[in-house]
Amino acid sequence: MITITAFKWVVPFAQGQVRDHRLRWALKEVGWEYEVELIDPAVQKSDAYRAEQPFGQVPVLREDGRPTLFETGAILLDIAERSGKLLPTDESDRALARCWLFAALNSVEIYLAEIAAADFFIEDEAVAKGYRAFALEPAREQLAKLSDALGARQWLVGDDFTIADLTMASVMKIVGHTDLVEAHDNLAAWRDRCFERPAYRAAIAEQCADFERHGPEDMGWDASLAGSD
Amino acid sequence: MITITAFKWVVPFAQGQVRDHRLRWALKEVGWEYEVELIDPAVQKSDAYRAEQPFGQVPVLREDGRPTLFETGAILLDIAERSGKLLPTDESDRALARCWLFAALNSVEIYLAEIAAADFFIEDEAVAKGYRAFALEPAREQLAKLSDALGARQWLVGDDFTIADLTMASVMKIVGHTDLVEAHDNLAAWRDRCFERPAYRAAIAEQCADFERHGPEDMGWDASLAGSD
Ligand SMILES: N[C@@H](CCC(=O)N[C@@H](CS)C(=O)NCC(=O)O)C(=O)O
Ligand SMILES: N[C@@H](CCC(=O)N[C@@H](CS)C(=O)NCC(=O)O)C(=O)O
Repeated sequence: MITITAFKWVVPFAQGQVRDHRLRWALKEVGWEYEVELIDPAVQKSDAYRAEQPFGQVPVLREDGRPTLFETGAILLDIAERSGKLLPTDESDRALARCWLFAALNSVEIYLAEIAAADFFIEDEAVAKGYRAFALEPAREQLAKLSDALGARQWLVGDDFTIADLTMASVMKIVGHTDLVEAHDNLAAWRDRCFERPAYRAAIAEQCADFERHGPEDMGWDASLAGSD
Repeated sequence: MITITAFKWVVPFAQGQVRDHRLRWALKEVGWEYEVELIDPAVQKSDAYRAEQPFGQVPVLREDGRPTLFETGAILLDIAERSGKLLPTDESDRALARCWLFAALNSVEIYLAEIAAADFFIEDEAVAKGYRAFALEPAREQLAKLSDALGARQWLVGDDFTIADLTMASVMKIVGHTDLVEAHDNLAAWRDRCFERPAYRAAIAEQCADFERHGPEDMGWDASLAGSD
């Protein structure tokens, strides 16, 4: 049996964004059953959890007889390789899908995360504004290059949906509150194509349902967070 | 024959930092010969190069009969898997080395890059200062957790140097101008252990020698950059 970790609750704007959705999505795509262990900051800080996830974050993936895996990128690759799904069958394309997986996490996510930092996390308004101005052009550029690379194709690599699409489309969610992706019709259409997949919808619904059953107090936080966004 | 791409020249503070050093290092570790194609902004912008590297960046790795690979993370994994070196022989440890490779690129590099952004790239001084204050604690925390995870061990995973160590040690260079790594004796000692390897020293010397033979004018830039840092 497979177990992944997720949070009991997060603030409303992060619901549907927490990275365990990438694993739920992939596991549903390949048809593997799994359980979810919902954790809180006390677990995150524990020695036992740190031994599994050195940074105390979610998600991890546990499976009998195998080491607990951490890092969504590594876990997605592991799921795809072992299931024989979510990767192209052509060997060259399979190598390129791995390149795109890393590109999502190391060439695109970082730029989009800076926009989210400015919009949601930097408290000093002048710093947030100045930093957004610094971060905006590079983010736009990466998305324009991504749009060029996608061109008129349905999927990033080969003829089918792969972990490259799954991860890159999930990365697009980070700027879902902006129109940065919508600036490119082909990119927005490809992202929507990914998000129309039943496995994606089920994954997000499942993550949000867990949050419905909990509240900030389950994370040891102030209940006034419940309505914040 | 293998060819990787690198730049003809970069500003002094980036010399020894450009990501092709990760490939040079790995290729020297496994003992594979390679050639280096030095490129400039005109090549970066060309359709031919964009077809190989969607973001127009360095490095890529070309090899006869295989698709050109991009993203240092994907290339390092490919080199390690195909050479049978730089990965633990134990299957569980091999899976964990992949987790650490992704951790370097998606859980540590991003935090350290924010410090470098504040110190080198954000031009507005007040914004740079405010942003550094925002980014400092998270960067410190990730390094403290990395130090805890390493503990008294010689290498991140298993008994030998792997691509996990190579990538994570290279990531430490991003804050080489600070004392953030030095705050943890075990981390600084492990990093130095990585950097004492002959393959690392040769890789950096080789990258810097290429820059010695060129100047900003080879990148189409103003020659006054030559002494800047
Ligand atoms: N690179 C890691 C990042 C994991 C990550 O950032 N997890 C977030 C949730 S999306 C988290 O656990 N944040 C809470 C914390 O850091 O305390 C991965 O992809 O697995
Ligand atoms: N995630 C990519 C990042 C590559 C990257 O950032 N390359 C830099 C040099 S270290 C570059 O080419 N910068 C020049 C530019 O973006 O024009 C990888 O690891 O390969």
